Amino acid sequence: MRSGARARFGSHGRRQAARIRCGATAMSQLLEQLIQALRVLPGVGPKSAQRMAYHVLERERDRGQRLAEVLAAAIARIGHCRRCRDFSESELCAICTSSGREANQLCVVESPADRTAIEQATSYRGLYFVLQGRLSPLDGIGPRELGLDALAERLAEGEVQELIIATNSTLEGEATAHYLGQLARRHRVRPSRLAQGLPLGGELEYVDRSTLSHAFGSRVEIGESDHAQD
Amino acid sequence: MRSGARARFGSHGRRQAARIRCGATAMSQLLEQLIQALRVLPGVGPKSAQRMAYHVLERERDRGQRLAEVLAAAIARIGHCRRCRDFSESELCAICTSSGREANQLCVVESPADRTAIEQATSYRGLYFVLQGRLSPLDGIGPRELGLDALAERLAEGEVQELIIATNSTLEGEATAHYLGQLARRHRVRPSRLAQGLPLGGELEYVDRSTLSHAFGSRVEIGESDHAQD
Repeated sequence: MRSGARARFGSHGRRQAARIRCGATAMSQLLEQLIQALRVLPGVGPKSAQRMAYHVLERERDRGQRLAEVLAAAIARIGHCRRCRDFSESELCAICTSSGREANQLCVVESPADRTAIEQATSYRGLYFVLQGRLSPLDGIGPRELGLDALAERLAEGEVQELIIATNSTLEGEATAHYLGQLARRHRVRPSRLAQGLPLGGELEYVDRSTLSHAFGSRVEIGESDHAQD
Repeated sequence: MRSGARARFGSHGRRQAARIRCGATAMSQLLEQLIQALRVLPGVGPKSAQRMAYHVLERERDRGQRLAEVLAAAIARIGHCRRCRDFSESELCAICTSSGREANQLCVVESPADRTAIEQATSYRGLYFVLQGRLSPLDGIGPRELGLDALAERLAEGEVQELIIATNSTLEGEATAHYLGQLARRHRVRPSRLAQGLPLGGELEYVDRSTLSHAFGSRVEIGESDHAQD
């Protein structure tokens, strides 16, 4: 048994409360600025920012330097493609200038991340149009802010035959999809929407009710060719 | 019911596998470099890095620019304090040069993050020594790499009366603590170690076995003063 330990260090507890409130840590100013600056990154709170700053300074100065340079260059040089509004270093992005893409299909997505997801997951060879947002009248985001006038002009050119609407399955995404569908029909372009239903590999038991109800109602007849594949 | 959907898009599935393997996404080169560079940060995988890059480019260009500048400045200007080995922009850090700290107590920690944690949580007014690591012979980290020769010189000066050993409670941390304890005694300095036991606010049921066993064995007699406070 040890005794006296509490008596010896007891006074610390009382002074401690005052110290935590004042928050002084005598940390290097630049280090504090770095920790603060790192919080611009999504999902990074004060604790992670501190861990990141220490990690880079302790072990990864070269790669940290590289990050600083690339970040500054990306912010300075990456703008938007004039034709599809995706991120691009040049006036037209790599997909819009590619000769290997089919210009009669145009896929509309909300964000560059959505475009990347489709490129990575599918074998789609058509072109894209990136809204950089969704219709949200309350936030002052209307057709103009999403570049839908430019999209209308493009549909009017007559080259696009199918407008694949790949907005998110949220309330605002659906409203945007509805608007885009009308826009397409007005220009005699066939609109299509990504299939909705059960996720592949998902278990019925864990699928949310509205998805299950929709998938049940939109069930698809099994054709001859599907049987042959089994 | 819808039919024909599978037949129409069935061929995509076959081409898709080849596409995922080749991984071509026609993304801006600079953007890909940025996503790669962000992975230097601890806990940031490919998905988070992509989300961070898009987030900064879409919404936070000014603060992203600031991060790039501060990161470069921190890497260029933050070195180590000559006396305590903590991060510092100047030759001596703010704590080592402060007149308000008591030079007879010296707290040894493994990393700058540990020092910050102690500064934030306690009312300790002594000085620090930051090992920037722990003894680990297999990785070639010996007393020399941790600056223990400088620490020995400092103890020999005679000003330090208590060496508070606050290394981590890991195998290597304990070995380092043992070494530091011997070093202290050799210079007639009183070594102390942070108390080990139940975490405050923790429930017995969920405390790990070795902590509970240690806390039980090291139980402390309740003194008169403690009764008075209740």
